[in-house]
Amino acid sequence: MTSPTIPADLEAWCTANDQRALDELFAFLRIPSVSARSEHKVDCATAAQFVADRLTQIGFTTSVESTPGHPIVVGEWRGAGSDAPTLLIYGHYDVQPAEPLELWTSPAFEPTIRDGRIYARGSVDDKGQLYLHIKALEAHLATRGALPVNVIVLAEGEEEVGSVNLEAFLEREQTRLACDAVVISDSTMFAPGIPSILSSLRGMAYLEITVQGANGDLHSGMYGGAVVNPAMALARILATMHDRDGRIAIPGFYDAVRPFPDHVRAQMRELPFSDEQMMHEVGVTALGGETGYTTLERLWTRPTCEVNGLLSGYTGEGAKTVLPAHAMAKVSFRLVPDQDPAVVASLVDAHVQRVAPAGVTVHVEHLHGGRPWRADLQGPIIEAGKTALEAAFGRAPVITGEGGSIPVVGDFERILGAPVLLMGFGLPGENAHAPNEWISVENYQRGTRAAAALYEEYRRHHHHQS
Amino acid sequence: MTSPTIPADLEAWCTANDQRALDELFAFLRIPSVSARSEHKVDCATAAQFVADRLTQIGFTTSVESTPGHPIVVGEWRGAGSDAPTLLIYGHYDVQPAEPLELWTSPAFEPTIRDGRIYARGSVDDKGQLYLHIKALEAHLATRGALPVNVIVLAEGEEEVGSVNLEAFLEREQTRLACDAVVISDSTMFAPGIPSILSSLRGMAYLEITVQGANGDLHSGMYGGAVVNPAMALARILATMHDRDGRIAIPGFYDAVRPFPDHVRAQMRELPFSDEQMMHEVGVTALGGETGYTTLERLWTRPTCEVNGLLSGYTGEGAKTVLPAHAMAKVSFRLVPDQDPAVVASLVDAHVQRVAPAGVTVHVEHLHGGRPWRADLQGPIIEAGKTALEAAFGRAPVITGEGGSIPVVGDFERILGAPVLLMGFGLPGENAHAPNEWISVENYQRGTRAAAALYEEYRRHHHHQS
Repeated sequence: MTSPTIPADLEAWCTANDQRALDELFAFLRIPSVSARSEHKVDCATAAQFVADRLTQIGFTTSVESTPGHPIVVGEWRGAGSDAPTLLIYGHYDVQPAEPLELWTSPAFEPTIRDGRIYARGSVDDKGQLYLHIKALEAHLATRGALPVNVIVLAEGEEEVGSVNLEAFLEREQTRLACDAVVISDSTMFAPGIPSILSSLRGMAYLEITVQGANGDLHSGMYGGAVVNPAMALARILATMHDRDGRIAIPGFYDAVRPFPDHVRAQMRELPFSDEQMMHEVGVTALGGETGYTTLERLWTRPTCEVNGLLSGYTGEGAKTVLPAHAMAKVSFRLVPDQDPAVVASLVDAHVQRVAPAGVTVHVEHLHGGRPWRADLQGPIIEAGKTALEAAFGRAPVITGEGGSIPVVGDFERILGAPVLLMGFGLPGENAHAPNEWISVENYQRGTRAAAALYEEYRRHHHHQS
Repeated sequence: MTSPTIPADLEAWCTANDQRALDELFAFLRIPSVSARSEHKVDCATAAQFVADRLTQIGFTTSVESTPGHPIVVGEWRGAGSDAPTLLIYGHYDVQPAEPLELWTSPAFEPTIRDGRIYARGSVDDKGQLYLHIKALEAHLATRGALPVNVIVLAEGEEEVGSVNLEAFLEREQTRLACDAVVISDSTMFAPGIPSILSSLRGMAYLEITVQGANGDLHSGMYGGAVVNPAMALARILATMHDRDGRIAIPGFYDAVRPFPDHVRAQMRELPFSDEQMMHEVGVTALGGETGYTTLERLWTRPTCEVNGLLSGYTGEGAKTVLPAHAMAKVSFRLVPDQDPAVVASLVDAHVQRVAPAGVTVHVEHLHGGRPWRADLQGPIIEAGKTALEAAFGRAPVITGEGGSIPVVGDFERILGAPVLLMGFGLPGENAHAPNEWISVENYQRGTRAAAALYEEYRRHHHHQS
């Protein structure tokens, strides 16, 4: 059995166009399409139009669909005929906020190559991984004048704020978006040179907890010791969320958790992973988490509770003796099958209200949520992905899990009835939601080739199965 | 026994000059002398010069003394002769930061009278209470050409940042500052119309606790559950500081606490105080604190631990799935006799290091501290204060405690060997360290008269005792 390779004409076109593929991505990355910030609404629209324009230029029929939030771009190419399968490629053009800006070595929205990496907000999450598909589609259309399968490209602008309008859009446009498989490149490879197929994602319930005490800030000397301190109350509430073993201590939290199959856990334990290397990478002297699980199991197969932000009282230079009027925490829970974000949010709310002391009022707002997901690891799109990745990277992919969330994956499967292939090209340490986000130039280019190969392999594997 | 009154000539001068006393105070209040913020260094110098200029104008010999921080103003009038006692009047020209600015009804540094109150940062703490002494001194000098006692005015600019340079200044200038008593107006009356002598102050140890995790912000999905979250670690550390009864659970914390005498506690229990009224005033439905004590005992006689500020991770609009690299809490402890701030700071540090989880490093910085204080309630300055307050307010003062701190009070007693009279004119609800700080116009004016009477009464009581 010979190793698969990238077809020569596609490879030649990609090589001839690698520089242009970088230049175009850089233009895309310069648009500060931060979906969480209302002041960037116009930038999100600009990024959507950028994607639509590029798809139109390579031969797609495109539309930019309004939503109550940021627009959704749909590009369609239906020239493969009705006996060919239809592949839907999903990605997102929005990015995380770039703050704290002062920690970026080069500006967040001025892409810069250093040491073989493209540094910019959105480089890996997800503009780079979306755009490499556009280049792969162009490779086919420019070289052969056609794609091997029918293709729908769907790019949204609200992934970083919970894809709040996508589910309704999928429901409404079910017929137009009907497809045989979905491919998403918005994840990381296990390690450099090791292509990966992601078999599970954690879901999320992202909450904002506010504790209100007095009707205004008070002097901590004149009232301290008698008026309940909302910042201390918040700390005590947060401290009830885990027990001593790192398990989440919110009643009912684990009720819906369905354990990962033993063979999946066995595969995970075979992956080359070093706690020491992770500790070195992030700069800590010990890891933590739930007892009884390996680090990869903690990251991929177990739910978590994390504080994402804290704010109360005086946080400037020096000392101010204030008893704050309120305190805020952003708290997110990563979820595993079959936990439901809305159920988790209401369990947390009930718990928080139960443990809150008299003298303060606590409000829990569910900012956004997404369901967890686990793949059925078989069928033509999975087989095509394996072959395409091996062709592009020279070795067969490994099967991984991931701690992050792509909340829409489950929606695609449920609403469109199509299996999802998660074929990502990020790498550990890529700083996806932090300063100095990057994607490796090599992975951007190999990813383009893997995508180009995928479309062809999918036609072949689908045909075999039909 | 007739009730004491304000001498007619002083009263007449005060009445004729009440409007000018307000105008001059307003000019003082317009100077944003925020000692905690380096950008206001020039404003602090301007405020110091303002005090010096006014003292010079009324006949004092003044100097503005440099310190490593903000300057100290010393004004001297020695014309009463060597058989007259010397009174040192202490106040501070610096103010708390005014943030959050948007919660002020009128601008923090544009004094505005509404409903008989002067609203401005520093109006009550302490510019108004310092300046009424300057007007009272002027009343004597303008009316009689002399003061009944020798007077030293000492105004510092670092009270709100812990008077970090005052102790060394007192030590160095012991001879020049030698005096028979110290009077400080930087406290509140028990209630409107009830003049008060403050018999105890809590001390303070103000700490900043920082928890450092990874070397940068991480994606909470990709690392959450394995890398220890500094914000959650901080919450859990803070939650260990109190037990279920509201007692501070730091080993050794209460070792140095000397209980208040029973007769002082009995006096406190006789003061008209309503928990319901305090709850209404600050807008809460329950009070909290250490079990086994009344609210006034909690505020005046017991040490506390308060969170003054919290900051970590993402605190902006919407959701950001970040696992923060670090988290910060400003935490202050109010202390009672004979707790020592440095000892408390080191007990807290040891406790925090003991309870901190592996995987984060915790740093405790002692930002500033002050010793607690309890008065010896006898002697000429106390007797003079009682008479002067009764003359100005028409009723005898009550003896109170206070939850706040004036760290230097103990220093004055210790270094200068002189008893301290705390005769304050603030009122409950004055928002001393919060938006919409105010002093009542009536108390500013009665305070001026009380101060004018005090100097004379002090000469008289001192003479009787000599």
